[in-house]
Amino acid sequence: MSANSKGADALRVDRVSELTKAIESVLKHLIPFLHASEVDYETLTEDRCLSKGCYSTGEALESYLSHPEQLHERLSLCLPPTGHGLEDLASVTSTLLQYSVNTSSPGFMDKLWSAPSIPGIAADLLLSALNGNDHVFRVSPALTLIEKHVSEELARLFGFGGPNIGGISVPGGAAANMTALLIARNVRLPHTKDVGLASVSSSRLVVFASEAAHFSVFNAAQILGLGLDSVKKIPTTTDGCMDPEALEDALDMTVAAGEIPLFICGTAGTTVRGAYDPLEKVGRLAHKYNAWFHVDACWGGAVVFSDKLKGRLAGSELADSIAYNPHKLLGVPQICSFLLGKDMRTFWYANSLTAGYLFHQDDSLPPLYEHSHCAPGSEHEMVSNHATNDSLSFGGDCFNWRTSRAIQGAPDPRNVYDLASFTPQCGRRPDAVKLYFHWRYYGTEGIAQQVEEVYEGARYLARLIMREPSFRLVGDVDVPCTQVCFYYVGPSVKVKETSQAMADENTYFTRLLSSGLMKRGWMVDYAPGSGRNNELGAFLRVACNRMTTCTVAEGLVKAIMSVVKEDIEMSPMKTSKPPLSM
Amino acid sequence: MSANSKGADALRVDRVSELTKAIESVLKHLIPFLHASEVDYETLTEDRCLSKGCYSTGEALESYLSHPEQLHERLSLCLPPTGHGLEDLASVTSTLLQYSVNTSSPGFMDKLWSAPSIPGIAADLLLSALNGNDHVFRVSPALTLIEKHVSEELARLFGFGGPNIGGISVPGGAAANMTALLIARNVRLPHTKDVGLASVSSSRLVVFASEAAHFSVFNAAQILGLGLDSVKKIPTTTDGCMDPEALEDALDMTVAAGEIPLFICGTAGTTVRGAYDPLEKVGRLAHKYNAWFHVDACWGGAVVFSDKLKGRLAGSELADSIAYNPHKLLGVPQICSFLLGKDMRTFWYANSLTAGYLFHQDDSLPPLYEHSHCAPGSEHEMVSNHATNDSLSFGGDCFNWRTSRAIQGAPDPRNVYDLASFTPQCGRRPDAVKLYFHWRYYGTEGIAQQVEEVYEGARYLARLIMREPSFRLVGDVDVPCTQVCFYYVGPSVKVKETSQAMADENTYFTRLLSSGLMKRGWMVDYAPGSGRNNELGAFLRVACNRMTTCTVAEGLVKAIMSVVKEDIEMSPMKTSKPPLSM
Repeated sequence: MSANSKGADALRVDRVSELTKAIESVLKHLIPFLHASEVDYETLTEDRCLSKGCYSTGEALESYLSHPEQLHERLSLCLPPTGHGLEDLASVTSTLLQYSVNTSSPGFMDKLWSAPSIPGIAADLLLSALNGNDHVFRVSPALTLIEKHVSEELARLFGFGGPNIGGISVPGGAAANMTALLIARNVRLPHTKDVGLASVSSSRLVVFASEAAHFSVFNAAQILGLGLDSVKKIPTTTDGCMDPEALEDALDMTVAAGEIPLFICGTAGTTVRGAYDPLEKVGRLAHKYNAWFHVDACWGGAVVFSDKLKGRLAGSELADSIAYNPHKLLGVPQICSFLLGKDMRTFWYANSLTAGYLFHQDDSLPPLYEHSHCAPGSEHEMVSNHATNDSLSFGGDCFNWRTSRAIQGAPDPRNVYDLASFTPQCGRRPDAVKLYFHWRYYGTEGIAQQVEEVYEGARYLARLIMREPSFRLVGDVDVPCTQVCFYYVGPSVKVKETSQAMADENTYFTRLLSSGLMKRGWMVDYAPGSGRNNELGAFLRVACNRMTTCTVAEGLVKAIMSVVKEDIEMSPMKTSKPPLSM
Repeated sequence: MSANSKGADALRVDRVSELTKAIESVLKHLIPFLHASEVDYETLTEDRCLSKGCYSTGEALESYLSHPEQLHERLSLCLPPTGHGLEDLASVTSTLLQYSVNTSSPGFMDKLWSAPSIPGIAADLLLSALNGNDHVFRVSPALTLIEKHVSEELARLFGFGGPNIGGISVPGGAAANMTALLIARNVRLPHTKDVGLASVSSSRLVVFASEAAHFSVFNAAQILGLGLDSVKKIPTTTDGCMDPEALEDALDMTVAAGEIPLFICGTAGTTVRGAYDPLEKVGRLAHKYNAWFHVDACWGGAVVFSDKLKGRLAGSELADSIAYNPHKLLGVPQICSFLLGKDMRTFWYANSLTAGYLFHQDDSLPPLYEHSHCAPGSEHEMVSNHATNDSLSFGGDCFNWRTSRAIQGAPDPRNVYDLASFTPQCGRRPDAVKLYFHWRYYGTEGIAQQVEEVYEGARYLARLIMREPSFRLVGDVDVPCTQVCFYYVGPSVKVKETSQAMADENTYFTRLLSSGLMKRGWMVDYAPGSGRNNELGAFLRVACNRMTTCTVAEGLVKAIMSVVKEDIEMSPMKTSKPPLSM
């Protein structure tokens, strides 16, 4: 091999012009794609209807959703032996966009995220080209400090105070919830780290969350070895919130059975109905029963920016940890998710480990002419659990794990800069930078205004739906968050004898609504009813977002009424096309 | 609120022009930053030295690394009440870049990733602006099919075959290893999902990995509730590879003690020395002892693209799962990481769950006039474990979990399109698209050529180091992967009486080398020696990467020799500035 290989050099000296051309190739098709959502917004304003809608594919959409193999063929996926280079980029981009959902369209109200924010996209491009990593300070000084700063400011907004607050970015809400439970487990039962669950616990550990909590909370118990049976699902009241009295009963029963209340998760903005659990009451119970208090505010936490709306989060300051996803309502591009902590020493204690090839933790030199320094004996060993007497007893109310000697022995989190010490991850994309850019771009007040507009838009939509006699809202017209949920109850509904039959019928019409909307360019998802509180069968769930103005709400209702008239009430039931189930 | 709020509209109708301007603002500073690495490459070619190097900060670097609070001040981080808008983007980008490591510089050889690939950056921009999510097919049809296709093709390259192969993208190598162990645990002990580890296992479960395996493998055992003590660290031979005889002994002892060999992890390319474990032998032992066979090929798996080098992976076809990170050697921007599976039914069985608001699994309509359909009773419940007799007995060799009825009852993975069913995550950034773009751009042969060049570059560097009498290589001059590890053994070394004193001395000189290189624009990390096999104290670890041509290797050696002459051998020991420890 010669010292100067021409072929090799090409890879290294033309990067800038190559990058410029590559970005141009992507933008060539990306810009018309994003522009379609602007056109949608204009035609909504003028005619209350979408022009392009969520899918560029148009008519073929339905067949693709039920026949992915046909789409596979259409995509002509190919990983060639010889590279196609720059010439190929534009056409691959074009094909990919043609068969993708346009989440920037005002018609996309299917999930809890939507159009990505411009400063967020700019930051994503920067992060990608910089290719940094927030695991150790040495390789990402500025990125690390930004993550620390943004996390602390977020923690402060949620009401945390004192010298030990902070947070870490995580690869999504499910990871945030799992990491919170992991920290609670390891702090409460320090020996778990070494000996595992099979040996350490004679008493069963119990996790509490409302029946409407996100599935990742239950799954976390499964992943961490506690098992799904360790979760007590607390019933909700008619508004979809956790019933604090039911929680207290469950806690009493747990203690009476000699079990340990380990972790209580309150949800701020449930996935389906957007309910805010009464965090203050739930938090007080957590402290009373000596359990870790976690708040899953991934979705509803956005109100923390608004003085007008943040009352919904009252009690979040009692939490030990809070999960929050700026990639949901705020519109920061995915993934941008945080786990915030009141005492980051617990994060460090539960997650830190030594890996000599990554963390250079010893802050002094090995003395060259003294023999007192103990070099690390192996390449990696977990930080010892500093097991003290108090950290080993975990039963009952007596063990105050929040102030255990083990936690107090952890380093001052303000001086920890190798952020991987706080997490179960190793390499970490510095996604906090996306929120940093977003926050500076819009300011706290700008973000607050956007959040308030979505909440107002949702209440406006709920009023429009309530006015239509063909619909019945699930829950109050003053929706707690930005979801608007409802059933079709118009003339096509036939009275049924059993509640199962009614549920089936409701699900049927809900799916007709969802698929009818899709044909008209809108994407709105549905969710199964709880079987209680007048929730029988699946109902439509409209997730309002940053694109949802009153104009958009009016356009959606117009589209819904068109589905009702043309697909439900006008066409004979027997010949109606079966709605999609995907 | 009026139906047409002017302020609200601005957010929705100027997106395209706003995006174009935002990208321009970022590129304004990003392009000179990336161009600096081209200049570096040119001055290396001409003068064997870097012009800009890894840090733009230059002189101030050292003080920042030991005094992050000073850098914090310099960054003037601020999250303002009123937004700064577009005007601010360029200056924030500029400040961030000024205090960031330039991973595109040929001088960056500190970690196992480096300059991001151009098609990867283009894909990242597209993903960000598209804001899709690979959890359910409905919202990301093209993205889902790309992830399925790329994963399957990767699995095929690693030697997997048959109808059930595939993979999923995961948020990093640590997540890949943890997910593999989770799948093994749940497949082997199906009841764990429900009842947890405390109740289910009377016999201890044991995890096997070489002492040089990545710390995330050990940490996975901790996270999942098995405990660190459940990991048996198998000694390595002098070349840093797992000793298969020691593994067999450990397996025998495990079985003799009535414990269950659950999981054997072979590493293809260890973090420090790049050793490839003898996968064929390790794999055969895994099958013989009825353990899950996982291969951590996050780093060394890149050779799979090269016919010339892929022999190092012989035996990977015996694996049940393989972790592989294209964001490491290939240069796909972070994060791009995969967990590949030989039988994706195990992934589904271990991870799938029902969450009615997300997965619409019922593929037929609820019959409107029949009552046989059973609507989901709650919003989410885990998929039942289909506990069959064979899936409950897990001791000894008799339970063939690879072909258990539970696994056979899982759906055909080719027909599963809601990819979140295969993972513990919910929302997932479609990072597989970055590899798709990269692969099409360079082709299999182009990627192979790049990988081969890095491997050749590393061997060239090892030869240059070997020629210098001041250095002693750790391991053979024919390095197995792309890391070159060595000690300073020149005239400044004084003979010491104890091995601890020798280790301290080695660590001292290694740190001098690392910090001296940093002053000259190079970043090279060090790692602690094992204390055995002539590894006493920390040694320098150069991680060669896509930027490492022979020219770069020569420039590095020139810089190293300058450190030796100016910082080690010429200056009196007592007055030399203490090297950095961060």
